[in-house]
Amino acid sequence: MHVKKILVVEDNDEDYTATMRAFRKTAIQHPVFRCIDGDQVIDYLHRRNQFADLDGSPYPVLILLDLNLPNTDGKTVLSLIKLDERLKRIPVVVLSTSNRQDDVDECYQKGANSYLVKHSDFARFTQTIEALKTYWLEQAALPVNKG
Amino acid sequence: MHVKKILVVEDNDEDYTATMRAFRKTAIQHPVFRCIDGDQVIDYLHRRNQFADLDGSPYPVLILLDLNLPNTDGKTVLSLIKLDERLKRIPVVVLSTSNRQDDVDECYQKGANSYLVKHSDFARFTQTIEALKTYWLEQAALPVNKG
Repeated sequence: MHVKKILVVEDNDEDYTATMRAFRKTAIQHPVFRCIDGDQVIDYLHRRNQFADLDGSPYPVLILLDLNLPNTDGKTVLSLIKLDERLKRIPVVVLSTSNRQDDVDECYQKGANSYLVKHSDFARFTQTIEALKTYWLEQAALPVNKG
Repeated sequence: MHVKKILVVEDNDEDYTATMRAFRKTAIQHPVFRCIDGDQVIDYLHRRNQFADLDGSPYPVLILLDLNLPNTDGKTVLSLIKLDERLKRIPVVVLSTSNRQDDVDECYQKGANSYLVKHSDFARFTQTIEALKTYWLEQAALPVNKG
């Protein structure tokens, strides 16, 4: 059975908890894998170091990427994914508290599939996750990514 | 005033009419510009030939791209947009009757922001357009594209 995992890249525990709360509220059933920094995402996607035993297992169907990360930052992670022939087809949705137009423009320019602003108001944030779920997990056709 | 135009690339009149009907049904207010083949899209985005007088006007905020087009086909148009530094940040959503996994994978690989299957059942198609509207036109942050 093909497990359709979502990769959530979020260093901040409080923000991660809020995201998982919104996932439960909107009944997202997909299993979630969390990475807490940019280096870990790269190791995870390249199945390196502590993730070497994942070799051959399917890539996540969707990546939710925070921009503000320790070590390798979110924009660099985005570029590394979108410049890699084996990884570039995985949909990357940036989920950031920044609503600066420069950040939005730069992420699309680097190949982000989409950009969502993470509102601090939980009801508003849940609406965003609801739209994410309906669009990406129910309506959109997603690529198949062999690991 | 910045007019947030949607570019719909669709050669088939019947399909275009169905799309516009779904746009009205879901109350999409954005003005639509239609291109009927791949060559026209390229001329339109490069402000060439009959579109030369558009030079300096804003690019569309979203492109809905059919794959099956006369002359330059949809996948080639997609590649031309996503390999062009001035155009690549414009979100391109493929809207195709094809649900072949190969087509889906290839479009994401070429940089499509997303892929939606165009169902022949109108109620089902309207649901897809509703999700498109909520996600891209209400929730997502969109890039600003100077023409």
